[in-house]
Amino acid sequence: MTQTLALGIDIGGTNTSYGIVNRLGAIVAQGNMPTTGHATVEQYVAALSVSLNDLLSQVDKSRLAGIGVGAPNGNFYTGEILFAPNLPWKGMAIPLAKMLGNAMQLPCILTNDANAAALGEMKYGIAKGLNDFVVVTLGTGVGSGFVANGKLIYGHDGFAGEFGHVIAVRNGRTCGCGRLGCLEAYCSATGIVATAYQWMAEGKHPDSVLHSAHPLSALSIYQAAISGDVLALEIFDYTALLLGQTLADVVAITSPEAIIFFGGLAHSGDVLLKPVKQYLENELLNIYKNKVKILSSALPGADAAIMGASALVW
Amino acid sequence: MTQTLALGIDIGGTNTSYGIVNRLGAIVAQGNMPTTGHATVEQYVAALSVSLNDLLSQVDKSRLAGIGVGAPNGNFYTGEILFAPNLPWKGMAIPLAKMLGNAMQLPCILTNDANAAALGEMKYGIAKGLNDFVVVTLGTGVGSGFVANGKLIYGHDGFAGEFGHVIAVRNGRTCGCGRLGCLEAYCSATGIVATAYQWMAEGKHPDSVLHSAHPLSALSIYQAAISGDVLALEIFDYTALLLGQTLADVVAITSPEAIIFFGGLAHSGDVLLKPVKQYLENELLNIYKNKVKILSSALPGADAAIMGASALVW
Repeated sequence: MTQTLALGIDIGGTNTSYGIVNRLGAIVAQGNMPTTGHATVEQYVAALSVSLNDLLSQVDKSRLAGIGVGAPNGNFYTGEILFAPNLPWKGMAIPLAKMLGNAMQLPCILTNDANAAALGEMKYGIAKGLNDFVVVTLGTGVGSGFVANGKLIYGHDGFAGEFGHVIAVRNGRTCGCGRLGCLEAYCSATGIVATAYQWMAEGKHPDSVLHSAHPLSALSIYQAAISGDVLALEIFDYTALLLGQTLADVVAITSPEAIIFFGGLAHSGDVLLKPVKQYLENELLNIYKNKVKILSSALPGADAAIMGASALVW
Repeated sequence: MTQTLALGIDIGGTNTSYGIVNRLGAIVAQGNMPTTGHATVEQYVAALSVSLNDLLSQVDKSRLAGIGVGAPNGNFYTGEILFAPNLPWKGMAIPLAKMLGNAMQLPCILTNDANAAALGEMKYGIAKGLNDFVVVTLGTGVGSGFVANGKLIYGHDGFAGEFGHVIAVRNGRTCGCGRLGCLEAYCSATGIVATAYQWMAEGKHPDSVLHSAHPLSALSIYQAAISGDVLALEIFDYTALLLGQTLADVVAITSPEAIIFFGGLAHSGDVLLKPVKQYLENELLNIYKNKVKILSSALPGADAAIMGASALVW
């Protein structure tokens, strides 16, 4: 019997989504469970295995080629999750690929969530046919997956693609990583909210609706922006400026054909991606101008992560 | 008869070096001629062909597999030299690979000089066996060649690897490319001299020997630095700081095993590379600390460029 199916698993800080995916990227069956609420990672893996086996009862298990997992701070080479600030389990290195592979008696491959997104876009999404592109994930953090010569850049240790930790503002805001001025501290959902609170504290645009909209979220700031709120628009403009500037440096290094935005903020088209494109073009070295496409993922949100993770298996 | 030889050509702003190189990287015969002094690029190619044919009279021409050329702003995909500010011929795009290939009746492949250096290091030099590394060329300009998964990153258009045009100082010194604050405007030989003149004009360390050493060059500043001149040492320290900071961003993107410096300044060990290493380590995201090797090319200067260019053929 040919093995035509893969399990794709997306481990997020709150929720774990999983699905059975065929080679064409179609999700045959799917489900999800909380990532949190398990005392240990062993208990989490045990609960996940039960859920996965439930799902697998719908198909012939012998058709399964393996499991692909996308997780924050996942390392492709070691199969471990390292120092993941957004996951509930502490500890140096969690050998998740090994644990889950043993529990399920299937080969299991792990990578970080942004790399899984890049694989998904390359195999099933908007990057189909592209050999040189970058996926930038805008969520709680900022992640990225770089593809060159048709292959993901893992780097020598599996940790390549930390675009969120490129310095956007020298000696700027403190990042979760402890360093100053990382892009993630400004351009993630959390970073956008931080900019809003900082600028409100400085008294900018006291007439803005944001001043009476506590607690703020990236979504509420986005909604204020599309309603024409000046402070909210300026926050997105500043976010776009920093993304455009840092992406100009990225283009000088890997010269991608496209930069593909992924995650909730990726769909903030006119408010975010249009100014990102403008600032990027302003900042680019001559030879790169008017060549780089700015795109947003067209795969359905939660499914894309599952599809991308499943693509690890092939 | 098996084709075991290649012509390697390094086109510099002043001088063109060429050699017949075997598959092991040994230069069988070599020569050089001025790049300048030819009214048109056609006349340059004609003169180069005469010189190459002279050299080839020493070997059986049927053993030659082809020609590899490294040139500033050379494009691997198109075989053209584009907008090269340091070469004597103006014009949008010079189809040098085609012109030279036709003249010599041999396949001819072109790339930029830094990519050729990276190929040379990978095939014959200090990067042998490495799959993920960066070569940074420090000369009149700052160039780079990025290797990931064992392959050069050319980008979608052949223009990847312009590390010299990553912004080192936002809104800083004007670069030759017209933008502000590029690394090249600070950390090239020209940039180091510019820092010296700027700081001298600001009256820094009036007792420095540099004040009475006009015209300055990167070499004379280096010599002052190793003699303990405080201004010269501070200039190298600042150069190292900017290199360390921008390289920390590069590591976050491609996570190389080694950063290999190439060119005259690459041998300014304790004065430049040692502080580069220190600043880089200070700036790195946690997961990268104490992992990236800082190396300098061990291939003999002029030969390395010829060897690298010849490696294009294989």
